[in-house]
Amino acid sequence: MRLSEADIDRVLEEDIRFGDLTVRALAIGEKPGRMVFTARRDLVLCGSDEASRLLSSLGASVIFAAQTGTCVEKGALLLEAEGTAAALHAGWKTAQTLMEWASGVATLTREIVAAARLVAPRIAVVCTRKAVPFTRQLSFKAIIAGGAECHRLGLFDTIMLFDEHRPFLTKPNDLNAIIAKLKEYAPERAIMVEVTSEADAFGAADAMADVVQLEKFAPDMVARVVHGIKKRVDGRPVIAAAGGITAQNAGEYAKAGADTLVTSAPFYAKPVDIQVRINPL
Amino acid sequence: MRLSEADIDRVLEEDIRFGDLTVRALAIGEKPGRMVFTARRDLVLCGSDEASRLLSSLGASVIFAAQTGTCVEKGALLLEAEGTAAALHAGWKTAQTLMEWASGVATLTREIVAAARLVAPRIAVVCTRKAVPFTRQLSFKAIIAGGAECHRLGLFDTIMLFDEHRPFLTKPNDLNAIIAKLKEYAPERAIMVEVTSEADAFGAADAMADVVQLEKFAPDMVARVVHGIKKRVDGRPVIAAAGGITAQNAGEYAKAGADTLVTSAPFYAKPVDIQVRINPL
Amino acid sequence: MRLSEADIDRVLEEDIRFGDLTVRALAIGEKPGRMVFTARRDLVLCGSDEASRLLSSLGASVIFAAQTGTCVEKGALLLEAEGTAAALHAGWKTAQTLMEWASGVATLTREIVAAARLVAPRIAVVCTRKAVPFTRQLSFKAIIAGGAECHRLGLFDTIMLFDEHRPFLTKPNDLNAIIAKLKEYAPERAIMVEVTSEADAFGAADAMADVVQLEKFAPDMVARVVHGIKKRVDGRPVIAAAGGITAQNAGEYAKAGADTLVTSAPFYAKPVDIQVRINPL
Amino acid sequence: MRLSEADIDRVLEEDIRFGDLTVRALAIGEKPGRMVFTARRDLVLCGSDEASRLLSSLGASVIFAAQTGTCVEKGALLLEAEGTAAALHAGWKTAQTLMEWASGVATLTREIVAAARLVAPRIAVVCTRKAVPFTRQLSFKAIIAGGAECHRLGLFDTIMLFDEHRPFLTKPNDLNAIIAKLKEYAPERAIMVEVTSEADAFGAADAMADVVQLEKFAPDMVARVVHGIKKRVDGRPVIAAAGGITAQNAGEYAKAGADTLVTSAPFYAKPVDIQVRINPL
Amino acid sequence: MRLSEADIDRVLEEDIRFGDLTVRALAIGEKPGRMVFTARRDLVLCGSDEASRLLSSLGASVIFAAQTGTCVEKGALLLEAEGTAAALHAGWKTAQTLMEWASGVATLTREIVAAARLVAPRIAVVCTRKAVPFTRQLSFKAIIAGGAECHRLGLFDTIMLFDEHRPFLTKPNDLNAIIAKLKEYAPERAIMVEVTSEADAFGAADAMADVVQLEKFAPDMVARVVHGIKKRVDGRPVIAAAGGITAQNAGEYAKAGADTLVTSAPFYAKPVDIQVRINPL
Amino acid sequence: MRLSEADIDRVLEEDIRFGDLTVRALAIGEKPGRMVFTARRDLVLCGSDEASRLLSSLGASVIFAAQTGTCVEKGALLLEAEGTAAALHAGWKTAQTLMEWASGVATLTREIVAAARLVAPRIAVVCTRKAVPFTRQLSFKAIIAGGAECHRLGLFDTIMLFDEHRPFLTKPNDLNAIIAKLKEYAPERAIMVEVTSEADAFGAADAMADVVQLEKFAPDMVARVVHGIKKRVDGRPVIAAAGGITAQNAGEYAKAGADTLVTSAPFYAKPVDIQVRINPL
Repeated sequence: MRLSEADIDRVLEEDIRFGDLTVRALAIGEKPGRMVFTARRDLVLCGSDEASRLLSSLGASVIFAAQTGTCVEKGALLLEAEGTAAALHAGWKTAQTLMEWASGVATLTREIVAAARLVAPRIAVVCTRKAVPFTRQLSFKAIIAGGAECHRLGLFDTIMLFDEHRPFLTKPNDLNAIIAKLKEYAPERAIMVEVTSEADAFGAADAMADVVQLEKFAPDMVARVVHGIKKRVDGRPVIAAAGGITAQNAGEYAKAGADTLVTSAPFYAKPVDIQVRINPL
Repeated sequence: MRLSEADIDRVLEEDIRFGDLTVRALAIGEKPGRMVFTARRDLVLCGSDEASRLLSSLGASVIFAAQTGTCVEKGALLLEAEGTAAALHAGWKTAQTLMEWASGVATLTREIVAAARLVAPRIAVVCTRKAVPFTRQLSFKAIIAGGAECHRLGLFDTIMLFDEHRPFLTKPNDLNAIIAKLKEYAPERAIMVEVTSEADAFGAADAMADVVQLEKFAPDMVARVVHGIKKRVDGRPVIAAAGGITAQNAGEYAKAGADTLVTSAPFYAKPVDIQVRINPL
Repeated sequence: MRLSEADIDRVLEEDIRFGDLTVRALAIGEKPGRMVFTARRDLVLCGSDEASRLLSSLGASVIFAAQTGTCVEKGALLLEAEGTAAALHAGWKTAQTLMEWASGVATLTREIVAAARLVAPRIAVVCTRKAVPFTRQLSFKAIIAGGAECHRLGLFDTIMLFDEHRPFLTKPNDLNAIIAKLKEYAPERAIMVEVTSEADAFGAADAMADVVQLEKFAPDMVARVVHGIKKRVDGRPVIAAAGGITAQNAGEYAKAGADTLVTSAPFYAKPVDIQVRINPL
Repeated sequence: MRLSEADIDRVLEEDIRFGDLTVRALAIGEKPGRMVFTARRDLVLCGSDEASRLLSSLGASVIFAAQTGTCVEKGALLLEAEGTAAALHAGWKTAQTLMEWASGVATLTREIVAAARLVAPRIAVVCTRKAVPFTRQLSFKAIIAGGAECHRLGLFDTIMLFDEHRPFLTKPNDLNAIIAKLKEYAPERAIMVEVTSEADAFGAADAMADVVQLEKFAPDMVARVVHGIKKRVDGRPVIAAAGGITAQNAGEYAKAGADTLVTSAPFYAKPVDIQVRINPL
Repeated sequence: MRLSEADIDRVLEEDIRFGDLTVRALAIGEKPGRMVFTARRDLVLCGSDEASRLLSSLGASVIFAAQTGTCVEKGALLLEAEGTAAALHAGWKTAQTLMEWASGVATLTREIVAAARLVAPRIAVVCTRKAVPFTRQLSFKAIIAGGAECHRLGLFDTIMLFDEHRPFLTKPNDLNAIIAKLKEYAPERAIMVEVTSEADAFGAADAMADVVQLEKFAPDMVARVVHGIKKRVDGRPVIAAAGGITAQNAGEYAKAGADTLVTSAPFYAKPVDIQVRINPL
Repeated sequence: MRLSEADIDRVLEEDIRFGDLTVRALAIGEKPGRMVFTARRDLVLCGSDEASRLLSSLGASVIFAAQTGTCVEKGALLLEAEGTAAALHAGWKTAQTLMEWASGVATLTREIVAAARLVAPRIAVVCTRKAVPFTRQLSFKAIIAGGAECHRLGLFDTIMLFDEHRPFLTKPNDLNAIIAKLKEYAPERAIMVEVTSEADAFGAADAMADVVQLEKFAPDMVARVVHGIKKRVDGRPVIAAAGGITAQNAGEYAKAGADTLVTSAPFYAKPVDIQVRINPL
């Protein structure tokens, strides 16, 4: 997933629109130096492409950049660049903050995925569209780096029936008719239905939903639904568990038999610490 | 702090660039409805201006919006809007996610400020520039809503000497000369120095730094520095404690006598839950 | 589907970035006038929202605007605005060209939909992502106004296996394994497979594809595939006919039994003529 | 004519903002490959610069790109690029659609120009400002590639008197006074007058218009005007025929003696087919 | 000439991207107030539309705004707005600086126009494309407000032969052939030729140039050219004097008989002083 | 200070959005050439980075570019580029105008700085935020190139108390309380106070302002304030002289003992002449 030039500009301008006052005042900008980013803990890396691009656009030369999606151990080299003190100091915190945040998202994603797959090796983990505003593209890149996928990119790409839609319909409780209408309208799309009760879960399955999303079901409730629904020959409906899923409980939900875990947790992960050292050459 | 029209566009487009497929499929877009946002917990509100603007730009009418910076109790009304089901559903999650995230930042900020001011009523809390990439403006709005201020807006507005600058100077350890140079270059700006040892703290104070920033000093170390430095008649230097400050330890740092607490914690706050109800009119 | 403010700006700037030289030279800008857009033929309207927004942003008052998606008869009033001669002349051709082009797309879409539904009332028509560059959002709005939907919004929202993917796989011909891999990766998404032979069509159906897209099959070939594939209980796989579908042959493809018609034709429709009259008040 | 970086970003983002789901699911992104674009018919190429830039910005290497404006024969190589399967698949349809559309515009332009110049080798063909919204710059590049020029870039660069201007003037029918006023206001600009009757055509010529544009005159009417107007020593007024001009009738209008043909037809040309082959290296 | 929303955003963001620190610190933002802009000298106003738009977008109400292009006397009211202290202080200097600068451009333009027209009432004054970078649109609006017009909008809208073009031609000195080629290529455009000698001026006239632009000719040289060239029946060629024209010498150039004066001087005019008073309500 | 790609695009598009009509008409675009920029007078260079970037983005090769901030003598080489006639002509005037304007700003800045430092070698010169709208970033780069710094970047980065703030306060004349409030709110920032009387100057100093800015004080008034205020041990308050400062009177203000001169004059400097020669290779 490629950020636009405009986005690289934007993230740079947040920090250096009017230049670096301290480096100007110290008059050290022309001196050559090297900047090295290393992991302070085991982490899944994300953001090294963007960090490289922003350092390059400041005039530094990127000597090495580990690849987005890589699991690295504490102490590992993540990025190394050379250039003037002006270029290195201009990009330092922006590159560091971007990688720390994006890698934090990727790392927590990986933890959830790992916890779930320990129990159910083929389970899918998908993340919601509740990314921090303005960060959706990079957030999605980070959760993909961590081994998850996007649940919905936005309102535009998927059909998901919520309870909030139903009162606007003539027959809010006729799931068969509603799902039939959706399938006729968009036969090529999977029809996803969020349900808040077991009865609705079974109803949605009977009505040929492609995905039945269980909103805030405890693991034992998920298990009951999983056992109660007979999958069709093509594996449908997919049973998705959503709401409050974390690295701590992902295993339980996996054990309960959900096909997919839907989570927003990674978007609010704590950044992971990345060490930066800057030295003259 | 006013977000640009372009930013309102951008946050909307993250979710509805190609419209709302589900509402189109259900053919319920024209039906009138009301959407109500209420607090699920006590919180400091932020984002209601932006939520209002984005709902208005979708064609909904905002009936009520509580003001950014307000402390509200669980159950309080935050925002109410009327419009077509199309407009309400198009703006629902974007408005909710934006307010939940921004209010999460504001609320945690307020907690840190409150914890510190319980001990030291005149202490200032400032947040670093380590906001999530692409969110700096709205993040800053949120921490201000929570009662903090910005430490540095970027590299452009302040002079802050780091250890990372010094090896590029001819005499890296001559703090007197370095600070004199900075003051001559920018007499109108406060000169801030980050120090990592008590010795450097005292040296920076002697060299007439305006702000001495103690990086990752434990509260007792802060206290020693506070007691060891004699303030000048105008209250300088300001003693700032930075690194790892949270709502839990802010009181201790305040008790240690720091004038200012510097923190990045609020930027990674968990969103606060906001309930949304949508109903036909 | 809402165009951003930036897009309204952009389309205006294409024509009036440096103002209207003729109106300036004639010195008639301040005179009040009325501008009326009427249909020169039966058409499906699209673009009236954008035309209204751009006229408003020029300072004119929109008195009436027919709704996007409406079928109107020759002679019908589409848009009426009042304002200074400067505002009306500034917006005239931009509004006209936009509505003529977008309505042209919508009208041809409706013709294809009508031709297909005459034969198969529940058939779906979807348009490809081959819209004219830079126009994807408005093009999609127009084809939806005409009664179709989007096939794929881009590469990001759907899984579609092409022959061009296969040589990069270890076992290019093992459709069962390929589709199983896709389903495991993205259980919530419909798996679409483009096929170029009848054998592959049956193979994809056997391998549990959700959508089998027949690329450039003649109607009789489509019919053979339709009869040869036994639908699963949930109606899968959907049989989509793609490649060269127009208003002329849509009926034949519908008769052949395709569930969905996939077409790019509307994107290159001729604009429909809209008459504009401007008069002083 | 150079598209901005922002426009290259924009056209890419229409298709791959959130990446390529299929290639991710297939896990083939890292494999190296080659992509080759060839002409499926004789065509005038346009868009190869932009296709090259977008492929490069995705990380592919462009080995060869034929030049915009070149007439190529069926089967000719247009563009060749190497890179990862991820890069090639990400750019494939965007590059193809852009070149097919832009070359379609260029090719039809060339046909009109050729038809006219067969009869009148020095005749000029110019295209109106009725390009598809959002595409004006690239549309103009395409018609120039096809051998035409721009009639008016927008409202800002030329003076063109329409019937729609006149009722706002005190003496709507006094062409002498109107044109004198225009010439005094803008002595450096050519004064163009659109006329809808032969009488007005002669009136405009008498009033020293630089260009007399005949709106929807049949070829024989054009011929009458051409013979009735005595050119001034500098070749003015230029006689322009506008309205409904196509490759089919361009020769007739040329034979009628028009100096310039004004057409919108190329903007709505059908795309020309370009074949794309993608193979592993 | 309408600035885009994006440009209004941009000019605002230059000054208040992260809000108004002083007003926040003083906690006076909520107090209502009135802001009044008056002329400190006679001036031609420009920028009041943009000032109004930016104040409105900050939430202030514009009570009165004098019209762009108006000549006002010292002491005249230019703009009056009411709103919170926050809104008024946020917009104060941006609105003031914009109006002072744009009115400075307009006022100097008017002085040049007036000086020239005192001698030659029908002379045209046009400004070059040497506006300050990033300001072309607003600069052009200002010179039009001052009674001038644009010479060339850019490289795209006019044909102007410079000496710098000629060495790239096969026969650099054959003005007849060069101009004939230009006329054939673009019969609808006026052909402008910059000349640096009297001989070339006569040569360009003989070759049927539409505009002969005399680059840095003294007034007496201009007069000699004017008398030596016999105008054609339609008033061509237009004689334009360019290079170093100011309010001081415009009268002399007008007296010398030039049809048009071409100047860059207004773009670098000193801003005119505008007084601002802000008071609580 | 780095301009964004979007800004390089923007400045290019001002001049060549729809290409170069003259070069197209002359059909000389493919011929190779060289373009050389030299100084027509002694000057301080600014804009060569941006000129280089825009020429490169047009496809020309920059052979040499003198560094921003360099003092060069009349006749010195500033920039040399090679490329097609199309590229060179497309960038010629944009590059020239940008460098002439930016160097004009830098050169006048240097004159003011030099005049002041002749008298007071350690005096600082800072420029206000009254840059021409849309040019703030490049204007700031130019004044820094000339040896000055930014006074305030905008409303966001500094605290500056104006008379216009005071009537909104409960006790407008209690400078002690006001400044104490500002220092408590923002202990890390320097508190700047603009004063319009000597009494207020002394009051601000007594109230521990960090910077006392004397608005439109004559040099002798400045001297009286300088002598009347006893500096604190850290050199505070800084005495800044503002209002009407130019290269002519900067020496007098320096002699009066001001620590800082605040000026807007450079923003409206006349461009410096730069010669451009273009020749075929």
